[in-house]
Amino acid sequence: MAKQPARPLEELSLWDDARAMLEKAAAEGLETVWDRLEKQKSHCVLCEQGLSCQKCVMGPCRIVADGAKKKNGVCGADADLTVARNFGRFIAAGAASHSDHGRDLLEVLAEVGAGHAPDYKVRDAAKLERICRELGLDPADLDPQGMAKLLADALYSDYGFRRPALSFIKRAPKARRELWDRLELTPRGIDREPVEMLHRTHMGVDCDPASICMHSMRTALADGWGGSMIGTEVSDILFGTPKPATSSVNLGVLRKDQVNILVHGHSPIVSEMILAAARSPEMLAKARALGAAGINVAGLCCTGNELLMRQGVPMAGNHLMTELALVTGAVEMVVADYQCIMPSLTAIASCYHTRFVSTSDKAKFPGGQHVRFTPQNSREKAMEVVGQAVEAFARRDPARVQIPGEQVSLMTGFSNEAILELLGGSLDPLLEAVRSGAVRGLVGIVGCNNPKLKHDYVLVNVAKELIKRNVLVVVTGCATVAMGKAGLMVPEAASQAGEGLAGVCRALGIPPVLHVGSCVDNSRILQLAARLADALGVDIDKLPVVASAPEWYSEKAAAIGLYAVASGIPTHLGLPPNILGSPMVTELATSGLNALVGASFLVEPDPIKAAKALDAIIAARRTGLGLSA
Amino acid sequence: MAKQPARPLEELSLWDDARAMLEKAAAEGLETVWDRLEKQKSHCVLCEQGLSCQKCVMGPCRIVADGAKKKNGVCGADADLTVARNFGRFIAAGAASHSDHGRDLLEVLAEVGAGHAPDYKVRDAAKLERICRELGLDPADLDPQGMAKLLADALYSDYGFRRPALSFIKRAPKARRELWDRLELTPRGIDREPVEMLHRTHMGVDCDPASICMHSMRTALADGWGGSMIGTEVSDILFGTPKPATSSVNLGVLRKDQVNILVHGHSPIVSEMILAAARSPEMLAKARALGAAGINVAGLCCTGNELLMRQGVPMAGNHLMTELALVTGAVEMVVADYQCIMPSLTAIASCYHTRFVSTSDKAKFPGGQHVRFTPQNSREKAMEVVGQAVEAFARRDPARVQIPGEQVSLMTGFSNEAILELLGGSLDPLLEAVRSGAVRGLVGIVGCNNPKLKHDYVLVNVAKELIKRNVLVVVTGCATVAMGKAGLMVPEAASQAGEGLAGVCRALGIPPVLHVGSCVDNSRILQLAARLADALGVDIDKLPVVASAPEWYSEKAAAIGLYAVASGIPTHLGLPPNILGSPMVTELATSGLNALVGASFLVEPDPIKAAKALDAIIAARRTGLGLSA
Repeated sequence: MAKQPARPLEELSLWDDARAMLEKAAAEGLETVWDRLEKQKSHCVLCEQGLSCQKCVMGPCRIVADGAKKKNGVCGADADLTVARNFGRFIAAGAASHSDHGRDLLEVLAEVGAGHAPDYKVRDAAKLERICRELGLDPADLDPQGMAKLLADALYSDYGFRRPALSFIKRAPKARRELWDRLELTPRGIDREPVEMLHRTHMGVDCDPASICMHSMRTALADGWGGSMIGTEVSDILFGTPKPATSSVNLGVLRKDQVNILVHGHSPIVSEMILAAARSPEMLAKARALGAAGINVAGLCCTGNELLMRQGVPMAGNHLMTELALVTGAVEMVVADYQCIMPSLTAIASCYHTRFVSTSDKAKFPGGQHVRFTPQNSREKAMEVVGQAVEAFARRDPARVQIPGEQVSLMTGFSNEAILELLGGSLDPLLEAVRSGAVRGLVGIVGCNNPKLKHDYVLVNVAKELIKRNVLVVVTGCATVAMGKAGLMVPEAASQAGEGLAGVCRALGIPPVLHVGSCVDNSRILQLAARLADALGVDIDKLPVVASAPEWYSEKAAAIGLYAVASGIPTHLGLPPNILGSPMVTELATSGLNALVGASFLVEPDPIKAAKALDAIIAARRTGLGLSA
Repeated sequence: MAKQPARPLEELSLWDDARAMLEKAAAEGLETVWDRLEKQKSHCVLCEQGLSCQKCVMGPCRIVADGAKKKNGVCGADADLTVARNFGRFIAAGAASHSDHGRDLLEVLAEVGAGHAPDYKVRDAAKLERICRELGLDPADLDPQGMAKLLADALYSDYGFRRPALSFIKRAPKARRELWDRLELTPRGIDREPVEMLHRTHMGVDCDPASICMHSMRTALADGWGGSMIGTEVSDILFGTPKPATSSVNLGVLRKDQVNILVHGHSPIVSEMILAAARSPEMLAKARALGAAGINVAGLCCTGNELLMRQGVPMAGNHLMTELALVTGAVEMVVADYQCIMPSLTAIASCYHTRFVSTSDKAKFPGGQHVRFTPQNSREKAMEVVGQAVEAFARRDPARVQIPGEQVSLMTGFSNEAILELLGGSLDPLLEAVRSGAVRGLVGIVGCNNPKLKHDYVLVNVAKELIKRNVLVVVTGCATVAMGKAGLMVPEAASQAGEGLAGVCRALGIPPVLHVGSCVDNSRILQLAARLADALGVDIDKLPVVASAPEWYSEKAAAIGLYAVASGIPTHLGLPPNILGSPMVTELATSGLNALVGASFLVEPDPIKAAKALDAIIAARRTGLGLSA
């Protein structure tokens, strides 16, 4: 069964730990995401360009824009409409995913408010009270439980559709809100917008590709300023607002002598409970009784980011490392919630002693074990599954264990609250640095990995190139692991930054790449941008703030990119969404949006070129503000 | 430009009016849906089988289930998962469409309640009061406006997600509700379920095809017992509950000497206003001044059904007739809202003097004129566009006018309220007829046309075969036009029914095919089935009630079929959804669901075979109830 990967290993990933595990996987006859990509090549060009449609059974149709024969689908849709419909649904699915995640947090908050979630509590009552006041709710005389109820009631309404706008929309600068109103981009309900997108893209509803694209932005904004922002804020309230801390990253965080539990997915609801159970004296005693030195919880993907930001839990890897982490043979259990969990993982787990436990009723995995977690039973279920992980330690085959590499240190925990505290309670020092050009601008580097691009290579090099140019990087999601492994998330990395940025980092004792959280926590970047804009008295589209999702793969990432753009933040993508079949949609995305929302997408797989293009935007915006480029 | 259609005309449609217009279209060089279908052939087999995936940019992927190479997508998804994900989104889009339509009605009701919709009012206050009481709301002392506000407030909550179940779920038999609770199929929010489906089908969320299929049912139920039922009930409240009346159907309803306005789409909100404007003395005077004998409003698709049911407005045609209606050259204007409006229509309209006006901001049409209708400006805008239609009459080219055929009479207006009244206020006479075998059972024949099947042929022949077998037909949507043109919707059609059914029809003066409304009005069939079940003291899956969508094409139709099945009503489809690439999903749909919900799908393009299969189910269920087969 041993086989050679189709491409040389050094083309697949930037990292030694990945390459070592790719070799082991090949030797053990295991298929990985890279193998499957090779087998899927060449992709269907029509699907890739967004020109295939399976939305009714008069079809399926394939639009060949230049050929007279298949210029239109059976219904009459042309290339522009077909691409817009497909893209609209792509965005809707991404937005829906974040928002449904936010909904889960809100349900826990409501249960806490109702006193029905004994294992959860308000860990940041000050933030809870602050947000209540921000939203015009009166928390006077209420205890945290009462405030939880009050806030949950208010935020629930954001998922309905009776409001003129979502609660947190008020955080956007006034000029931006007025622009959204003018363009009818103001989201009216977190669930309503993706549902309306499904409706619009049904046969014979919205037949205007531009109109569908505009609604894509509204749908994305319902994610960024709605579902994702609720996800972030409620997670902070329930699990604590992140503060700076240190931790470590890469497969080296797995421990040869301990029970290794990987949490995978996106929500903190279950992973926080797993962590608490793993740290309990009973479980530690059980582990020791079975010969383990302890229980090591490490993160994958964004639930990893949630635990890293708030609890300093180390990160084993990002999207393309999820399969490879199991190939170490050292993982007793994967505890999964939802999103970006490759269906292949249960098969790989089954080749080892590794148990795969799913925990959310909306995300089951054939071949895995499903344990239904609820706000009522979380601690009990967490003890149960951690107990099973400990027992699995006894079945680990030491001969098959290979933990590659040395863990790398990183700093984490840069919530907006933490940044503000670092700056002494005001954004002024940051604004001063921006004005002086010490910090020329800010880039959010976000998103996933994609096996079409050399793993973490584009991510790391966009960041390196931009910090050299005195652009402060804030990082979320899978991008975090890349930056961490590259050593960019420790204060010492200041030496890799340009002089101005390096000085600021040294003065504050921070790295030039700040970890601000998981993918839903891109909402923190929106909020930070809004505060900077307000402080400077301009709209976001005038700020030297840009974004980059160099190795994105998912619908969620596309929604993030689109809400960034619709918020006025130019966004780089390492590869295009499936829109190239429509010159109209492509032109709108990469240029036309500038005239509407003051930002657009740029697509560039080369990290240096991408960094230069982002830098040019920052320079132009600085000039626009009357600052040195 | 004249050309021959690829298939002989007699294979395309059952009807002379359609064939005449197909000949005219060919002679005038116009492309129709049949031409585009020919050009799209052969369809991509993988898309047709549900085996292509464009849900992330690691792909797009094509799953070749039997080939080792492409057995899995890049993420690892296999054929079953890929098909389930695609099918889940297909259902979600259909459910979202109906529900978003229901939302629009609810918004008008709320505006009426707030006193902000001067052109709308409560036309059935008794029904409004009855539904308030049914939902446990106290309408005492409230005028219709006050009750409108009360009900709107309550139903709005159904679009949120804080409820254990939707308001109208209580209408389902207790045993069915308990089954849904047990299987976790009880819909929790009208918008929530399609949004959760988008989430579940994102990469790495629900990886269990069975779990996705179960959520498809919950999503469909949120449509049938949620959004669609709200659409129906609120439409009745605002525009009147239908009562039996006569009207006519086919292209012969167009008038050579009058201004012809076709309303197309699904909602009554705008079409009711167009009708009122067309009947206004000012507009009639204007029409006469320009040489027209009057203004003739006729329907296409379901907004036509809405006006037919409540106002007796004639129907020009169904889905496959929408292009051909314009080919008559006799149509001054199409006023469109949304759903099933082929994007090709604006191009065809532009070949004549025909104006195409879109009215909903969520459905714009390049090449058409967009007029924004709101609950505040409807009458004014309706007068404006009807005025434009009248002016267009002067530009009609008589040399290009050809109105084929003679209109056919039909009866309409069989709301459940009307049926109950016909029966003397109680279902007992119907139950007695069912017990005796005079009426062996009930079939809902619903849904669209599909150019892959001979237009209206399957619809009409399923109905003919079943009425012969003493099965009473209730009909909605595009199926209505087929039945009407076939002469099955007049009391005289009793002669085509079996002896028992014929006797009942003659006794009541009704046809053997009863028009119960538009596609959202399939909710009337659900409610009728629930009442019959309650009266017999059984669950719906014991009733001799079946459904058939012989020529369906749309995502909405699939959602309807699935909520019927999930409600216990076996459903025939003339052609399969794109699921055949998964043996597991196919088996579940066509058989496995029986064990879960007591009903499943049967797929059969031949109308006689389909009718026999439905008849066999009715016979078996009758036997189960201890009745003669």
